[in-house]
Amino acid sequence: MNELTIWTYDWVPEGPRGFVRDLRLRWACEESGLRYSVRTIPFDGRETNHLAQQPFGQVPFLKDDEVEIFESGAGLLHLARKSEKLMPRDPAGEAQTVQWTIAALNSIEMVTVPWWFLKMCGDEKNHLTEWVRKRLDQLELVLSEREWLVAGRFTVADLLMADVLRVPDVRSFGDRPATEAYVARATDRASFQKARADQISEFEAADRTRAEESSP
Amino acid sequence: MNELTIWTYDWVPEGPRGFVRDLRLRWACEESGLRYSVRTIPFDGRETNHLAQQPFGQVPFLKDDEVEIFESGAGLLHLARKSEKLMPRDPAGEAQTVQWTIAALNSIEMVTVPWWFLKMCGDEKNHLTEWVRKRLDQLELVLSEREWLVAGRFTVADLLMADVLRVPDVRSFGDRPATEAYVARATDRASFQKARADQISEFEAADRTRAEESSP
Repeated sequence: MNELTIWTYDWVPEGPRGFVRDLRLRWACEESGLRYSVRTIPFDGRETNHLAQQPFGQVPFLKDDEVEIFESGAGLLHLARKSEKLMPRDPAGEAQTVQWTIAALNSIEMVTVPWWFLKMCGDEKNHLTEWVRKRLDQLELVLSEREWLVAGRFTVADLLMADVLRVPDVRSFGDRPATEAYVARATDRASFQKARADQISEFEAADRTRAEESSP
Repeated sequence: MNELTIWTYDWVPEGPRGFVRDLRLRWACEESGLRYSVRTIPFDGRETNHLAQQPFGQVPFLKDDEVEIFESGAGLLHLARKSEKLMPRDPAGEAQTVQWTIAALNSIEMVTVPWWFLKMCGDEKNHLTEWVRKRLDQLELVLSEREWLVAGRFTVADLLMADVLRVPDVRSFGDRPATEAYVARATDRASFQKARADQISEFEAADRTRAEESSP
């Protein structure tokens, strides 16, 4: 089997470490046992230095032989087709895994990310706050009744949903015990722990490289 | 082949007619020739009357024999697996169709919908405006170089991207000729025209039913 290549930045500031979205793809590979390597593009000039690979100037993107894919959600669905560990193979299980993957991106993250962005801009009490509250409450109802979103077991939909929910401002938004237990359950997995530790240690190593390069 | 069932509301106010997202699934069925029927749930009480089918209280959802799917994006990917007219069958073509479908949901709509929502709340000059501008500019670059997003032909990714971009406030946001030509190309298709006309005429028929029910 071909080795997969996950592309990310060669360095990021401390804030986003442990949250850059190549982590989603690393996590999926760790979870499924798919072999992968990580390669980097320069963080400096990131707005325009890889538009051919990612037209919005973001990371990650994934290379699987002749197939190149940007959008972490699309990368996850691609990996899920390669490993049953990430997605059941029966039609209903597959459809529901795709459904909850899209829900994480378009029903939860579509509200939480712009809300968080406005908060970062100093717009603490913005009009998205109630929308975030409503969506998280609706999700809490779902998670109160099941351990994992689909088929009674961990899938790529949980990987993505937990990654969306573990963002500190989202995780601390109100008291939702089922959601908190779910995020803890997902992020306690060895696959997540390894993916996160690898990302952080690689960015830390890049700190040292940058320090050496800028020393006289 | 089983008939597909698309679920939507039994009525909506005039504003959203022609934009309720069951249209995406109707369009995909019209485009591909998949047989379908439309069924409805009450608009009144929509926040809680169908949480078993759609945990966020939204429409549409899709039924295909024993498979039930919410999230219009997931419904579209499900339909795309049933018809090559919606998605190429080679691995690269499929991966890129999924990629651009997710990009429409998570790179464009994730910014445009909250931006539009803030605008509706009276927050005209909000902090998402520059982000919308940047994403639409990046997309304009892509659309300047190709007629359709994937494989040189219309796919479900174009269906969704055009549906995201045709929202009046988004369509009139700045002057982007390639994007405008793309939206016009997509929405000129007979499949879109029929899906839109059907949705609008069904909601208009519901006006008459509601008028009769409320008359003495």
